[in-house]
Amino acid sequence: MAARILEALAGVVGADEVLTGDAAQPYLQEWRGAFQPRALAVVRPADTAMVAAVVRACIDADCAIVAQSGNTGLVGGCAADDARRHVILSLERLSAVRGIDVDNATLTVEAGCTLADAQRAAADAGLYFPLTLASRERCRIGGNLATNAGGLNVVHYGNTRDLVLGLEVVTADGRVWDNLTGLRKDNSGFDLNDLFVGSEGALGIITAAVFKLHSPIVQQSVALFGLDTPAQAVGVQRRLTAASGHNLTGCELMSRQAVALACAHIEGCAEPFEAACDWYLLVELASSASGDWLAAALGGAIADLRAEGIVRSVRVAADAAGARDIWHLRESLPPAQVAEGASIKHDISLPVSRLPAFLDRALPAVREALPGVRPCPFGHVGDGNLHFNLSKPAGSDDAAFLSETARANAVVHDIVAEMGGSFAAEHGIGRLKVAALARYKQPVERDMLIAIKRALDPDNRLNPGAVVDLDAPS
Amino acid sequence: MAARILEALAGVVGADEVLTGDAAQPYLQEWRGAFQPRALAVVRPADTAMVAAVVRACIDADCAIVAQSGNTGLVGGCAADDARRHVILSLERLSAVRGIDVDNATLTVEAGCTLADAQRAAADAGLYFPLTLASRERCRIGGNLATNAGGLNVVHYGNTRDLVLGLEVVTADGRVWDNLTGLRKDNSGFDLNDLFVGSEGALGIITAAVFKLHSPIVQQSVALFGLDTPAQAVGVQRRLTAASGHNLTGCELMSRQAVALACAHIEGCAEPFEAACDWYLLVELASSASGDWLAAALGGAIADLRAEGIVRSVRVAADAAGARDIWHLRESLPPAQVAEGASIKHDISLPVSRLPAFLDRALPAVREALPGVRPCPFGHVGDGNLHFNLSKPAGSDDAAFLSETARANAVVHDIVAEMGGSFAAEHGIGRLKVAALARYKQPVERDMLIAIKRALDPDNRLNPGAVVDLDAPS
Repeated sequence: MAARILEALAGVVGADEVLTGDAAQPYLQEWRGAFQPRALAVVRPADTAMVAAVVRACIDADCAIVAQSGNTGLVGGCAADDARRHVILSLERLSAVRGIDVDNATLTVEAGCTLADAQRAAADAGLYFPLTLASRERCRIGGNLATNAGGLNVVHYGNTRDLVLGLEVVTADGRVWDNLTGLRKDNSGFDLNDLFVGSEGALGIITAAVFKLHSPIVQQSVALFGLDTPAQAVGVQRRLTAASGHNLTGCELMSRQAVALACAHIEGCAEPFEAACDWYLLVELASSASGDWLAAALGGAIADLRAEGIVRSVRVAADAAGARDIWHLRESLPPAQVAEGASIKHDISLPVSRLPAFLDRALPAVREALPGVRPCPFGHVGDGNLHFNLSKPAGSDDAAFLSETARANAVVHDIVAEMGGSFAAEHGIGRLKVAALARYKQPVERDMLIAIKRALDPDNRLNPGAVVDLDAPS
Repeated sequence: MAARILEALAGVVGADEVLTGDAAQPYLQEWRGAFQPRALAVVRPADTAMVAAVVRACIDADCAIVAQSGNTGLVGGCAADDARRHVILSLERLSAVRGIDVDNATLTVEAGCTLADAQRAAADAGLYFPLTLASRERCRIGGNLATNAGGLNVVHYGNTRDLVLGLEVVTADGRVWDNLTGLRKDNSGFDLNDLFVGSEGALGIITAAVFKLHSPIVQQSVALFGLDTPAQAVGVQRRLTAASGHNLTGCELMSRQAVALACAHIEGCAEPFEAACDWYLLVELASSASGDWLAAALGGAIADLRAEGIVRSVRVAADAAGARDIWHLRESLPPAQVAEGASIKHDISLPVSRLPAFLDRALPAVREALPGVRPCPFGHVGDGNLHFNLSKPAGSDDAAFLSETARANAVVHDIVAEMGGSFAAEHGIGRLKVAALARYKQPVERDMLIAIKRALDPDNRLNPGAVVDLDAPS
């Protein structure tokens, strides 16, 4: 049986592109270590027609397909888990930039292209592809699309979904839907593009996409505020959004504990002000319009905020090097938490206005539930998205702390749910949060998710076990 | 049978809110005159729970539900067409603004609220709701959502869908999905919000929504260019997008014939330049940031475009009154076409870059197919969306010209399809374009649309006959 499907797949892609054993290992890593993926084989088609043929071969052999591009996801979305039946379909050979249409300001790119290569192709054409993730050299467009990736400048440019104008998708029955139209307006039927984006390989396999491009940035200002409360951060964010004409391109909140760990562990990080602050807010303003009006708007807003007593400490980057220094502090928070040892992570969102109240509730709640825990919240305050990460008590055992994960999740996610937030803001559901989805979604929504899954993938052939559990009791 | 369902509906909403006979007539008008709607009754629930109860009563009586809000649609989307079985569910009593969250910059509003009232509520809170349609005093939010309405400033703010953060929906089985979260990031399952937006009442009944708000405009520049070719318009659009930092909020192309009809029929319209031009382009730049840098960016771009020989004639509005004059010309095009007699309309879109080539093909094609026809194309060139309208030959008979509609549609839509465009850019499918959808969509896409319809509305109870024809041969 295994031999037969391997042979059929080899017939489609060539024997060299059907990997098993050691050759398959790189595709079976899950870098957070939460899953031990296994699969019958890894298959690497070279183009869209081959992807469709692989799907049809898997149908014939009654195998399931787990699509994978950069394999940098954080929720086990491509962690295949059946060595007899799961075929990992790697998209990395579909890496072409198919084209750039300058007058339409669009980029057409295949799912296996790295985000960084897509950014470079846009820049080479004198345009700007704004999606920005720390993993940009490794993550690939297919995964960005499958997870509706967020990142560092969603506050201005939106999530991945907001950048998409069209898709090419291989369906669960092995057909190709070509919707690479590049249309900015199209109301000819239900919105399939947005349904496939963020569907984590469970409804179809995205093989290519058309993205909107922006004009290159020619004017930028970066500043770091020291604040007493998250409410001040929300106020600063609101003020700068209006004053800059909605050109706030970065808005990152950092807690005192998160910054302290960065200063302790990461080279080039130092306390930004004379005295440590309870909260820090990084802001970036940017525009493709020339002039220095963004710096003027920032200066004016800072003067007003000082006069109102909202801001005491602030540092405005004098030049690009100064801006990089401020961003370096922010980008050092995740590796600093890793260096400090075990942490329990929560990727949550709330309405921006409710972030202060959430922190008021969640911080005491986790401290009570996990004595000695060191919460290191940080994240994209302009999007209402916090990485509410909890570092283990100083000097404690990693494994003992991580054994509390389910309890910590319940404490945090229950508060999020009560306050109308999301337990899966930008990383997706994958396999990690299937139970949380079942727990927190209204039955009517769960029923709709399952109905859509069954409509587009009636045999549960695409990424089974991800997003929705079809076997769970309703 | 009819008496029993009327009684059941009266039990839900009260006898006064179940309308038949003359009282139902206003809900059975279809203002383009393309349909003669008929229905068993019009029912006017007062709140979401009542909407759900009406749906359940219709299930019990095996009736279908056609949701209606402002009844200003252009494609027969709420033209019920079965006097024995169709119940028109008017949402106009659900007209509340439920709230504005200033720190989250969101507006929560019910489906029966007029667009103008929603705009006013945002303005009263010091914010700006950017969706702008000529029908804003009559159209209602539910219809804006159901059709994913476009309008005059999509080029900057996007379509209605781009403004939505969450929905409240009554499902086909009469349950309520409350997703009025106001979250800017939420990847907890497939994207149901975007699926319901633009689904024209065929997948669920949207009863309320959370919209993103913007900051009020404090700086604005409007100009009118006289041009020789559509390609020049594309070039000007591209230049101004970059130079203004993507603050191009209006970008409207107008053909010489369209402007000539406005000058002939509408008060306050006059040829803008000494000699008539083949094409005109209205541009508006706007920002919530203070200063006069947009005017400077516009001035600089105009100087460059003149030096390059791209632009000869241009008029920059000196003040708000001048800006209104320029917009008045644009807004006069549709009524001028009505005043001139019969016209055949096409709401099409293409990649912005292909608009010139489309016009090069389509203008001679319609002139050959319909001798004497006067094409009056105009529209949202920044979105690639043209209203490719054809006025009848001067002095000819209205009915005779309109009898050529199907043939004209085939000529125009075939070219659009060959060039990768859409035959339904911003008005939707409704009942008017069901056959076009069946003709132009790939079978794989049609199959997916039908699968989704069946998944969320298995008994075809919601707006049957709209969007997809479930009985058509595949």
